Amino acid sequence: MKSINVGLIGLGNVGSGVFKILEDKKGLLSKKIGLKINVKKICDKDIVSKRNVSVNKGLLTKDVKEILNDPQIDIVIELIGGIHPAKEYIMEALKNGKHVVTANKALLAQEGKEIFAYASERAKNIYFEASVGAGIPIIKSLREGLVANRFYSIFGIVNGTTNYILSEMSYNNLTFNEALSQAIKKGFAEKDPSLDIMGIDSAHKLILLVYLCFGRLVSLDEVFIEGISEISLLDVSYAKELGFEIKLLATAKKQRDELELRVQPTLIPKRHLLSSVGGVCNAIFVSSDLAGDLLFYGPGAGRMSAASAVVADLVDLTQDIKAGLFKPILNILSDTSIKRLRKIEDSISRYYIRFMAKDQPGVLARISGILAKNNISIASVTQKERKKASVVPIVMVIHEAKERSLRLALEAIDRLEVIKQKSIAIRIEEL
Amino acid sequence: MKSINVGLIGLGNVGSGVFKILEDKKGLLSKKIGLKINVKKICDKDIVSKRNVSVNKGLLTKDVKEILNDPQIDIVIELIGGIHPAKEYIMEALKNGKHVVTANKALLAQEGKEIFAYASERAKNIYFEASVGAGIPIIKSLREGLVANRFYSIFGIVNGTTNYILSEMSYNNLTFNEALSQAIKKGFAEKDPSLDIMGIDSAHKLILLVYLCFGRLVSLDEVFIEGISEISLLDVSYAKELGFEIKLLATAKKQRDELELRVQPTLIPKRHLLSSVGGVCNAIFVSSDLAGDLLFYGPGAGRMSAASAVVADLVDLTQDIKAGLFKPILNILSDTSIKRLRKIEDSISRYYIRFMAKDQPGVLARISGILAKNNISIASVTQKERKKASVVPIVMVIHEAKERSLRLALEAIDRLEVIKQKSIAIRIEEL
Repeated sequence: MKSINVGLIGLGNVGSGVFKILEDKKGLLSKKIGLKINVKKICDKDIVSKRNVSVNKGLLTKDVKEILNDPQIDIVIELIGGIHPAKEYIMEALKNGKHVVTANKALLAQEGKEIFAYASERAKNIYFEASVGAGIPIIKSLREGLVANRFYSIFGIVNGTTNYILSEMSYNNLTFNEALSQAIKKGFAEKDPSLDIMGIDSAHKLILLVYLCFGRLVSLDEVFIEGISEISLLDVSYAKELGFEIKLLATAKKQRDELELRVQPTLIPKRHLLSSVGGVCNAIFVSSDLAGDLLFYGPGAGRMSAASAVVADLVDLTQDIKAGLFKPILNILSDTSIKRLRKIEDSISRYYIRFMAKDQPGVLARISGILAKNNISIASVTQKERKKASVVPIVMVIHEAKERSLRLALEAIDRLEVIKQKSIAIRIEEL
Repeated sequence: MKSINVGLIGLGNVGSGVFKILEDKKGLLSKKIGLKINVKKICDKDIVSKRNVSVNKGLLTKDVKEILNDPQIDIVIELIGGIHPAKEYIMEALKNGKHVVTANKALLAQEGKEIFAYASERAKNIYFEASVGAGIPIIKSLREGLVANRFYSIFGIVNGTTNYILSEMSYNNLTFNEALSQAIKKGFAEKDPSLDIMGIDSAHKLILLVYLCFGRLVSLDEVFIEGISEISLLDVSYAKELGFEIKLLATAKKQRDELELRVQPTLIPKRHLLSSVGGVCNAIFVSSDLAGDLLFYGPGAGRMSAASAVVADLVDLTQDIKAGLFKPILNILSDTSIKRLRKIEDSISRYYIRFMAKDQPGVLARISGILAKNNISIASVTQKERKKASVVPIVMVIHEAKERSLRLALEAIDRLEVIKQKSIAIRIEEL
């Protein structure tokens, strides 16, 4: 049986999972694909520490050139993360005629244009299923399974850490900080979770999904990004009462000839499947012209689930190699009906708004007066009687309004001396 | 640009949708795949009636041999449904060296062994994405995206008609018959909907999913099948009160060395995503060893959504042909840890049970006595006060019990003269 040689760069969490699958499932895989996958070399800066997988010492090296320059290696798997030196390793691998598998969403979101173009120039493939939704086969589905479709929108819960935090706040009444500590303790958040909390990781994944669905590789500063650190238990509870769950939603919406891109905490109606995606799970909801509205759901993180996606990419590559085929598996086409990205100020939504106001007569009249002046119409108001509180929350749901008008209105309202805190506005996505 | 010639057998609902996609999206597809897909001939027994797509008359024929015997045709798409002559057409196409795309779940579930074996012998591919879940790329996901995974279970809502009926009963309080008439009126059910209502269509789809996940092509009589015609509005309402939705669930569950296969109305806890799958939508929930628990959701029926899947298969085949590659895309392997199918009598579940009993003292004591004698333990009982009713419903949820014990108990209970109707037992799936 023919062998395909693989070089693995990065024997961390996912890397060791990949190695474990290739060892444990050697028989299953070779029977399925008619080839042997042979890990020829593994490079890591630490080749001494014990892993939860046993690796023959002869396979290990600290010198990445032993992989990149080995003409017998057909496929390089990059699992070190980060921009440098991951980018240089991938470019060198492509230059030396190797196909590439990576899970590196940050790198592809930031440097994808150059990397994809170079792969195409070198007639090599670069696969990245594990970069979004871990083991959920979302990239293959968008690229191959829905090959004939045009897309209208993507709504994704694509970051497990923030979804865990928001779920704990909603289901177990934890505060943001309590939920975050718990996430760190349970290993669902990194010690520095800022990329997740701030929405950057979700934005990276959104950029890749948008590339697949709309054929545009936008840059990070073209995505409006808001994290979840401002979300309070109070808002989570009010949202629930109103029939919503708050989720960090990565959104791409085509509206006529514009594309709206944003990552924001968002109120999702409880009747929608996305509102029920709890814990570290991810889900991607796409609307397409032929196959309709589809949802893909599964664990969004985890060593073996990401490794499952890496191995699936690897298997696809073995088939390409067997066939002597360069297929950038079906070219990604630009949706030419999209002329520009929509400015966030021009986006239109319903909103949940919470004001913290002095408990005195006339407050509601002044708030609603300013909203009316900005053409914002109120759908519902909740103000509960509170004992001994001098400052009370007033919660409103407003009908569709332009973000620009809302911002102007909130600025004016926040200048009122009866308003005691910066007002909170969270978008409602009807779905 | 190279062309691949396609012959289409069956220009009905899905067939005309496929033709429409290939016409409307000619440019998009050829840019994506680097090849032209050319429909060379279309066979239908009716080549006179108008379709909602315009077809050049020269393409149409009533003689299937013009497709099957044309050496220039590379791929045959079979969309006539039914066993005969669909089987003969597919076998002839394979014999004559053509690859095949079909959406024919009944045929593959019944005659798959022979057809798949012959395709393999002839080194041709047979793809069938549209046969389960219409446009949801579930088959590709199981086969390729999750290639390294072993599966523990499949739970599928895979029939749009019955899910529409059950949803209307639950959301809009329609009776079964009202919901069925409405489904027929809206075109969501065929005039003779018995294959759907009886659960046969779901069983066909389950058989294909089991084949993909466990590598066994079981026969229809190895699946325990119960339809939804016995489900009353009363049970739907009680289930809701208890925190469940009733769904027609296609289930495959590995339990040690046995595989349990059944299609049954089933109570699903409201917290589970599957309980929120409404209307004609489908969803398939699979548990796997690496990628964890995944859900795939989308419209389970509809001309363009099924056609979307057929075209995706077609595109895959063009890539195989371009590569001169025969890949039965990754061999399907038998899960050898499964030694036998579990008898339904040996299956273990919690159950919802409804008794219709005379409203007189001692009834509950007699029922619970018989349950206890059969080692069945009661989790909850609901009996509401009813005005002027001589017969009242008593609803119980029981703890896990063997179906055999439950049947014995129900037979004994139904013999009591205080019991006025056959008792209803519906399985609860904890998920």
